[in-house]
Amino acid sequence: MRIGICGAGTVAQGVVQILRDQSGLMSRLNPDPIEVVALASRRNLNLPVFEGIPFIDDVFALAEREDIDVLVELIGGTDDAFTLVKAALANGKSVVTANKALLAHHGAALFQIAREHEVSLLFEAAVCGGIPIIKALNESFVGNQVKGIAGIINGTTNFILTKMAQQGQNGAFDAVLAEAQHLGYAEADPTFDVGGMDAAHKLAIMASLAFEEPLQLDAIYVEGIESITSDDHEWAERLGFSIKHLGIALADDGGIEMRVHPALVPNGSQLASIQDVTNAVNVLADPLGEILLTGAGAGAGPTGSSVVSDLFDLAAGCARKPPPALMSVTSTRAAKSIEHTISGWMVRVDVPDESGAMSEVASVLAEYGLSIDQIQQRDTAGGMATVALILDPVREDQLRSALLNLEGRSNVAGTRAIRVFDSRAVG
Amino acid sequence: MRIGICGAGTVAQGVVQILRDQSGLMSRLNPDPIEVVALASRRNLNLPVFEGIPFIDDVFALAEREDIDVLVELIGGTDDAFTLVKAALANGKSVVTANKALLAHHGAALFQIAREHEVSLLFEAAVCGGIPIIKALNESFVGNQVKGIAGIINGTTNFILTKMAQQGQNGAFDAVLAEAQHLGYAEADPTFDVGGMDAAHKLAIMASLAFEEPLQLDAIYVEGIESITSDDHEWAERLGFSIKHLGIALADDGGIEMRVHPALVPNGSQLASIQDVTNAVNVLADPLGEILLTGAGAGAGPTGSSVVSDLFDLAAGCARKPPPALMSVTSTRAAKSIEHTISGWMVRVDVPDESGAMSEVASVLAEYGLSIDQIQQRDTAGGMATVALILDPVREDQLRSALLNLEGRSNVAGTRAIRVFDSRAVG
Repeated sequence: MRIGICGAGTVAQGVVQILRDQSGLMSRLNPDPIEVVALASRRNLNLPVFEGIPFIDDVFALAEREDIDVLVELIGGTDDAFTLVKAALANGKSVVTANKALLAHHGAALFQIAREHEVSLLFEAAVCGGIPIIKALNESFVGNQVKGIAGIINGTTNFILTKMAQQGQNGAFDAVLAEAQHLGYAEADPTFDVGGMDAAHKLAIMASLAFEEPLQLDAIYVEGIESITSDDHEWAERLGFSIKHLGIALADDGGIEMRVHPALVPNGSQLASIQDVTNAVNVLADPLGEILLTGAGAGAGPTGSSVVSDLFDLAAGCARKPPPALMSVTSTRAAKSIEHTISGWMVRVDVPDESGAMSEVASVLAEYGLSIDQIQQRDTAGGMATVALILDPVREDQLRSALLNLEGRSNVAGTRAIRVFDSRAVG
Repeated sequence: MRIGICGAGTVAQGVVQILRDQSGLMSRLNPDPIEVVALASRRNLNLPVFEGIPFIDDVFALAEREDIDVLVELIGGTDDAFTLVKAALANGKSVVTANKALLAHHGAALFQIAREHEVSLLFEAAVCGGIPIIKALNESFVGNQVKGIAGIINGTTNFILTKMAQQGQNGAFDAVLAEAQHLGYAEADPTFDVGGMDAAHKLAIMASLAFEEPLQLDAIYVEGIESITSDDHEWAERLGFSIKHLGIALADDGGIEMRVHPALVPNGSQLASIQDVTNAVNVLADPLGEILLTGAGAGAGPTGSSVVSDLFDLAAGCARKPPPALMSVTSTRAAKSIEHTISGWMVRVDVPDESGAMSEVASVLAEYGLSIDQIQQRDTAGGMATVALILDPVREDQLRSALLNLEGRSNVAGTRAIRVFDSRAVG
């Protein structure tokens, strides 16, 4: 099988290194060798790992060449990559991509073109690096109805939240972000990761496969971690939780919900134990139950490993047809707006340090039908106190009304609310 | 695709239920429907789930029938199942099995027959129920060199150890085993699970796939959990560990090691957080890094889900050829004997509660080149004390010599030693 690789960055280097290192294993398992016939990139960095591979500077040329069976798209972005992948598929080449943004934005069109030309468009590497979640959803869990997916699906945000929690009051968001950038775990412009859009791309793809619904990036509620403070971490810890940035997709007969936001997860749960840049995807399916896949979500080795796994499926003649959901455009179930979703909550209310303050907060919450799981009060500076509560799951608009009421009271100096997610409460 | 199912127990019921529930999904993904043309079992229980499926009482007849493309072997055991699967493969039928004992004992012969007759022998359900570890090793991790596997791969032992740890001094092994039997988590004759042989079967299969070596059940060191006491759990907790029953397989250029035994794992690690009957498999691979798959290791739904995943691979024409390792009989790397493996240890030494006792223990251990990571002493009854230590990783024969020396001393009333496993120390 003759492949052409577009892009010469970290993942491309990882792919070529693996193909060199593992050629023995792969030829034992399958007699059709994988041969890199060309590497295309705007700049030729003359890296030793690419030695011996013919180099060209026009990525679009690879989509046209007759000596290439499979194009590996590793240039990223959604403009040139869309043009490139469209051309390759239309020319009868299968495509392997690690580009989650491309699929989240243009997946329906691309999978449709792949089907028309009877070629494959594979993308294990596009979601959570080395974790084989796409193959699991497409092949292993095929006998199941997936009810929910919840995961730590962005390594940058998990690294930042882990460090903030470890550093206590010294762990301000800006300082830890700078540390992550210094270590190469965050981009110079970190908006895409810390703002949640990267996680939303991955969630859109997983939810489409899991629920057999169209790709619906726009239907995802997206909230980043920029506003998380060291006080948030301190209170979470006191109440027995850790703060994680989650991608959550749930489905029932009434609809689907997709959301990306920071949330408190109970300490002792598996999601709470996921540290640093590690990713984790929890799938709840019937009749399988709960299954968790954990591993490296990025990097040359893990992401390259997933690209090679797709290439090997193609070489073995075992690449699946595009799942119908990914090329569909008509939803069968409506996406819920965030106001209609149900979550537990950590709520903090700043009040004067006077008797009766805590009971006023509690009685307002009770008035709105909110049920209190935990309540704690702590004095702060200047004669003030913070009342912190963990609330049982409640519809979001109900919580928002209660917060509005609290904020309108003369005794309330401010409120803060962060969602709670407990995978044991799903399903 | 026409299938015949041999066996009418829990897993067979799960498989048929899934095929009924998910026929819509599967036909959307693949046009070749999976049709159950016969169910064979010694006894006809007339279960509602099997309604409409022709029943026969001769399982061997299914291996001969021309209207069956795929035989699903769910009768268990290694005698009749071997005869049955051999006959089916030789008659050109592919086989899907959940039978780990069959493969661990007769895998090489069966995969050889499958290859000769150009049919498939699939077994996702044979290892860890619903966890897709076989597909991961065979397909997803194909670009990797697997260096190690360590997992909680027997639900019965994990349930018993979890309950013992929770119940403190009331958690005697016999009492908790009786509870597990009452709840249906342990067989009337629990030897196979608690003695470690069930885990050894699974480990043999995973290690063969992972390391490209023949199936070598006899080369596995097997130790059960029968001797674990509430004192062991209490000391593990004091020192910051949990006791788990692990299957461990490690490979380097020098050889491979495979062992099943109880071990202390550090609290806070992911393996320590695996509770009750849940299974977990940790794979360390290059360049993928560490990846952990967690889920239900048994039961109609999870195991049935894996059988259906194999059936779907067959129906989609995507079942892989038998991996060469599984049919090979010649090892390229020697299996290490347990004496030559390296582990950390928890060692407890009973000594008189006198000054100098702890230092005598420490100096003997130092004499044998053992390095102490933690040491604690506690008074027990009758003027005695227990010195408990966590030792850094050391070759097992070195540890055994030191224990023999200690046991020969007049001051030492007894010793107890349990291995420590830290996945972070592998690789």
